[in-house]
Amino acid sequence: MESNIIYVPILMAILGLIFMGIKAVWVKKQAAGNEKMQSISKSIKEGALAFLNAEYRLLVVFVIIASIALYTISIIVPTTSWMIVPAFVIGAIFSALAGNIGMRIATEANARTTEAAKTSLPQALKVSFGGGTVMGLGVAGLAVLGLSLFFLIFTGQFLGNGASFYENMTIVLEALAGFSLGAESIALFARVGGGIYTKAADVGADLVGKVEAGIPEDDPRNPATIADNVGDNVGDVAGMGADLFGSYVATVLAAMVLGNYVIRDMSFETPFSDAFNNMGPILLPLVIAGVGILASIIGTFLVKISSNNAKESQVQRALDTGNWVAIVLTLIASFFLIQYMLPETMNMKFFGNSYMVAVPSMNVFWSACIGLAVGALISYVTSFYTSLGKKPVLDIVQNSSTGAATNIIAGLAVGMKSTFWSVLLFAAAIYGSYELAGFYGVALAASAMMATTAMQLAIDAFGPIADNAGGVAEMSELEPEVRERTDILDSVGNTTAAVGKGFAIASAALTALALFAAYVTFTGIDGINIFKADVLAALFVGGMIPVVFSALAMKSVGKAAMQMVQEVRRQFKEIPGILEGTGTPEYGKCVAISTKAALREMLLPGLLTIITPIVIGLIFGAEPLGGYMAGVCVSGVMWAIFQNNAGGAWDNAKKSFEAGVKINGEMTYKGSDAHKAAVTGDTVGDPFKDTSGPSMNILIKLTCLVGLVIAPILGGHSSESMMANSKETLQKQIQVEMQSSAEVEAKAIITTTKTVNGKVVTEEKVIEGTPEEIQEKVEELKKE
Amino acid sequence: MESNIIYVPILMAILGLIFMGIKAVWVKKQAAGNEKMQSISKSIKEGALAFLNAEYRLLVVFVIIASIALYTISIIVPTTSWMIVPAFVIGAIFSALAGNIGMRIATEANARTTEAAKTSLPQALKVSFGGGTVMGLGVAGLAVLGLSLFFLIFTGQFLGNGASFYENMTIVLEALAGFSLGAESIALFARVGGGIYTKAADVGADLVGKVEAGIPEDDPRNPATIADNVGDNVGDVAGMGADLFGSYVATVLAAMVLGNYVIRDMSFETPFSDAFNNMGPILLPLVIAGVGILASIIGTFLVKISSNNAKESQVQRALDTGNWVAIVLTLIASFFLIQYMLPETMNMKFFGNSYMVAVPSMNVFWSACIGLAVGALISYVTSFYTSLGKKPVLDIVQNSSTGAATNIIAGLAVGMKSTFWSVLLFAAAIYGSYELAGFYGVALAASAMMATTAMQLAIDAFGPIADNAGGVAEMSELEPEVRERTDILDSVGNTTAAVGKGFAIASAALTALALFAAYVTFTGIDGINIFKADVLAALFVGGMIPVVFSALAMKSVGKAAMQMVQEVRRQFKEIPGILEGTGTPEYGKCVAISTKAALREMLLPGLLTIITPIVIGLIFGAEPLGGYMAGVCVSGVMWAIFQNNAGGAWDNAKKSFEAGVKINGEMTYKGSDAHKAAVTGDTVGDPFKDTSGPSMNILIKLTCLVGLVIAPILGGHSSESMMANSKETLQKQIQVEMQSSAEVEAKAIITTTKTVNGKVVTEEKVIEGTPEEIQEKVEELKKE
Repeated sequence: MESNIIYVPILMAILGLIFMGIKAVWVKKQAAGNEKMQSISKSIKEGALAFLNAEYRLLVVFVIIASIALYTISIIVPTTSWMIVPAFVIGAIFSALAGNIGMRIATEANARTTEAAKTSLPQALKVSFGGGTVMGLGVAGLAVLGLSLFFLIFTGQFLGNGASFYENMTIVLEALAGFSLGAESIALFARVGGGIYTKAADVGADLVGKVEAGIPEDDPRNPATIADNVGDNVGDVAGMGADLFGSYVATVLAAMVLGNYVIRDMSFETPFSDAFNNMGPILLPLVIAGVGILASIIGTFLVKISSNNAKESQVQRALDTGNWVAIVLTLIASFFLIQYMLPETMNMKFFGNSYMVAVPSMNVFWSACIGLAVGALISYVTSFYTSLGKKPVLDIVQNSSTGAATNIIAGLAVGMKSTFWSVLLFAAAIYGSYELAGFYGVALAASAMMATTAMQLAIDAFGPIADNAGGVAEMSELEPEVRERTDILDSVGNTTAAVGKGFAIASAALTALALFAAYVTFTGIDGINIFKADVLAALFVGGMIPVVFSALAMKSVGKAAMQMVQEVRRQFKEIPGILEGTGTPEYGKCVAISTKAALREMLLPGLLTIITPIVIGLIFGAEPLGGYMAGVCVSGVMWAIFQNNAGGAWDNAKKSFEAGVKINGEMTYKGSDAHKAAVTGDTVGDPFKDTSGPSMNILIKLTCLVGLVIAPILGGHSSESMMANSKETLQKQIQVEMQSSAEVEAKAIITTTKTVNGKVVTEEKVIEGTPEEIQEKVEELKKE
Repeated sequence: MESNIIYVPILMAILGLIFMGIKAVWVKKQAAGNEKMQSISKSIKEGALAFLNAEYRLLVVFVIIASIALYTISIIVPTTSWMIVPAFVIGAIFSALAGNIGMRIATEANARTTEAAKTSLPQALKVSFGGGTVMGLGVAGLAVLGLSLFFLIFTGQFLGNGASFYENMTIVLEALAGFSLGAESIALFARVGGGIYTKAADVGADLVGKVEAGIPEDDPRNPATIADNVGDNVGDVAGMGADLFGSYVATVLAAMVLGNYVIRDMSFETPFSDAFNNMGPILLPLVIAGVGILASIIGTFLVKISSNNAKESQVQRALDTGNWVAIVLTLIASFFLIQYMLPETMNMKFFGNSYMVAVPSMNVFWSACIGLAVGALISYVTSFYTSLGKKPVLDIVQNSSTGAATNIIAGLAVGMKSTFWSVLLFAAAIYGSYELAGFYGVALAASAMMATTAMQLAIDAFGPIADNAGGVAEMSELEPEVRERTDILDSVGNTTAAVGKGFAIASAALTALALFAAYVTFTGIDGINIFKADVLAALFVGGMIPVVFSALAMKSVGKAAMQMVQEVRRQFKEIPGILEGTGTPEYGKCVAISTKAALREMLLPGLLTIITPIVIGLIFGAEPLGGYMAGVCVSGVMWAIFQNNAGGAWDNAKKSFEAGVKINGEMTYKGSDAHKAAVTGDTVGDPFKDTSGPSMNILIKLTCLVGLVIAPILGGHSSESMMANSKETLQKQIQVEMQSSAEVEAKAIITTTKTVNGKVVTEEKVIEGTPEEIQEKVEELKKE
């Protein structure tokens, strides 16, 4: 049984996918509403699928080129396998599939949620959350299934091939990194492309429709309205699905790689052995992920409300209950799994020490608890800075009274300030989990955060579905109470989205660190010393990349939005009767503009992310590349928090005016000058929070993954450098010996170098005696 | 002669101060205009002096507390001297003095420039640039004088005290760091306080005066107008003076500290000796700085125009000529000084190597050239991103046509994008100058950039004087041609200000790196390895500080501006006849609001900067503090470039509308909707470019200085740790020996550690034989 534990995550993943299928069938069985609703829903679905198909066609080219590059590496470097190529391709396909499943169910669920909202809020929640569940389970199931199956295949292929367990396992994990690389590359393009698509359509539709023509949001007379609703699905659903799929895979992979180092450290004298084919520490993260799927399924059953008059807080409580039950169940299971699968004490060689430290396996559990606690606290900080009625948002509202400029300054300041607690908490998580169980602890902290991804994503994805449902209600001109019900769901969705982003950035950053640690160990370099000028220079270059990436993403949104504005203006002018509702707008042209712009503009930031680390690694070597990665991580985390929270706060500052706010003692509503200033802030925040901000997660993870994959070329774990490594270890041991046995006798050869006429001349002097004597003589020599 | 070379910089500094006195007398002798002009000029001067006095009163408290802390350190740590305290106090006083001199001459020169502009543009340039020259020479003269005199006193005190030259010199330089710390602390408060003051007054005056009451800028009916003009002097002149004084001192100090390491490296076998009291490499940066003063004086003579009808480009050319002549003269002098003062080849131990490298002294000269070239290129990049008529600014202009939101998005994107080339160039400067001559090369690159500070500052300071002169012309209701002439000077001043900021951030960042290198060597740690979790966590915390600092500064401006708005509104309502010009506004109340707000709000960011590194150093130790410093540097450089350039670009996008711009084929002017959107952008940019952005320079330098000063407490260069250092060196030598003599025979003791029932057991095995044999046995042992 124990040696077959790999089948546990496989079974859980299949279970998750089956449950996903059942839910999907159930959602599709719900009534889809009247003909108009169905037709709107169909337009949205077709637009979204058209975009995804165009996107995938483009990405196929990328995947082919990258595959050739990976294959070439595998031929040149003897210790890597060509099997990285299928892993990469399948990773890319699974990632696309995860986004696709989510997108399809979301576009099915939107009109059905509207239909359900006609009669009952509990039912509307059930349908929209059902859609979210399908997506969550699809992502988690595919991720765990893919990782487990490839791991099974690769271990069968490479283990017991003559070389040591550690060396073979390194080849396995290096090939498995291909799966993660494939997933994360597609995620980057999907996030950036989707983000540009949705915001170009949104900003364009608003600027001409709402502001110039004075027609409401989601009005069917606006030619960009379908593009806008398509954007919600393409960006928020498909983009997010691919993003979290990538995060999930990368986190588990990083933990597995670090598990391999635990085994190596414990194999110094005798090979490590346990009941799990001697790879308990490697399998643990996979099994926890599998259990997380089961816990999430249980959690989803608890997300329900009974009263038709429920308010936001009750819906929120239902989601929280499901979420926390899933988390606590996973944590309890982890407690037992850690005891079961890890040796009672593990020997770890902490960096910089020459001796082993005995780490009780329970420390790994505490690391996981730290991960979860810090994740929850960062989410709390995020929601404080972005929620309605809290001081930061109220502050932006107050500053709207003196115009757009003060609103913007206040919003920027809120975003910047929000980095304070988030970063301190994050630093505490690194420090604490490392102290407990080294980088394996850091990786398990991230794994714990990500274990209930299925549930998290279900909660995240239900928001855009409810948002779309409201759009369908508006466009189909249904009773106001339908829109009121979907608005309750939408409003809860906004809060969960902000909280989810906090969680996502925390887990992404921890994952990046774990990958970073894996990279350092893969390449066999002696840490990343920023006191070396080339490493320091690379640190600065790395710090610049997220900033430039954000600039490119924002500019792309601006450019595409301008095109959209011109097209909508043209249609308003040229199509007769369009504003009276008698002429039909050409929705397709707006969809085409967003599609083309998104595909064109996603390339540059995407390639910048992928190519820069390769260039730095190949030209300057492994340690500068490490400095580059660290720079991307540090800067990326700051800019992610800054942009996400500023954007979220601006959004809610604008929303505050819907219910009315008190400014200088006067109640102020929608339509006031202050509200207009707040709308300006929200428009600035849109690309922040939906395009550039969320891309930062992927940017930092992908950078570290690229490093990990090219590590073997940088003089990584080839046989030669492994020899070098063991030589180094040998020397270190000698050094230690000199210190301890030095009590008795020591011998030192002092090498002095002097320069004569520009030439370096080296002289050697031999000194023997006790350490004290040697030291005295050295001091004398120095004074000579 | 040669051993008295320390008197060269002292003489040059005195020469500079004498020339400054002559210029100041000359400026004051110029006609000060009619009574109204004199009275306006007097109000501005009084307001500015009142603020500086209030600021200094507050800073006296800070200086006293900091002095007590420094004195305590000097008692606890035996190898530091109490003499750091007077150095610190004098540094603070000199910094305040530098700001004060500049401010006084600027407020004298403004009305005199206006008066000169009545008749002649060449004369107006002469007066305004004369004012700038006074400030530049004052700053440079005081800096070089202070450093040289303290160095002379301290070397007399500590050299030849029994311990080695290197140890004694370390004490000298540690005490001298106090001078730099004093200067930089005051600079931080002056920059932040001045920045808050000027922008609170500016934004407040504009929002009520220009927007609400519809009266022009600098109109005497606006109660905040005097505060606004005071702000220009307090922020742009006094703040910048203190800033550059601090930079200059820190740069020279860092180069001196690294010169000491050059001497240490060259003293391994026999003590280093040369004709300059054996301290040529330490004295070189001081002498170059002294020569830079002379070259600057020569350069100032070349700044003149002859035609009364000169355009901006001619004025710009005059400034450029003076600047480049000063730079080239300094460079030529450096060429000979380096040959004269440095040994022909220097032995340097590059970090991570166990052997010495022979570095020709000419490499130091090439490092200086790299510094100047990169400084010039970064200035060029800065001016590209912020200049009228260039693509980035035109892009913001185009985006203004669709409203404030797109203007803001475009401006933010320009600021972010501008980091690309700046950071690449900066990284190249680190890499190149280090490759040439180690960190001494990096420090000399920064020194070369800063050598002509006197000239740079003269050019920088003439801008605000011309700006103020325009204000005086407006308030005194002079002929339009007077304003036209001052506007030409003002416009050139805007460009030089942007370019100066690019130069300042590049030199500050290089200085910070040199200080960082000095810190690592002072503390005797083995580099800064970010693969250690605590160092990595500190890197993240450091990265967060500039972001939070910026947020605090921006929020302070917002808060103070709101108060100003309310006060101006109150006066417009309550003072009868104020808008008709018959009632007199209460200027003093607005001045008081800005003053109080600036003093109150500068404390938190200032203390955050100073206290955080102390806390991290004391709790986590020297290496995490190094990580923190690196984080502050990386993030600070990004945010400085981003904020400065975005602010500059917004400013010029707004200015573009004054001459008219073509948007979508139509000429658009001031007063259009697009112009209003551009004004919003400019208002957002104001605190970016004048408050938070320029503070980043000081933030990063001060962080590194605080680290350097507390280095001795962190187990720095006390006798004990010096022993440890030499021990370490000894061991390294042994290690190298083992490698080379290992051809013959080697002995290795393998230490294996296993854990039995939770206890760590260590076993040792001794292996003897040739390296090959040992390795074989180790492989066997591993497989056991």
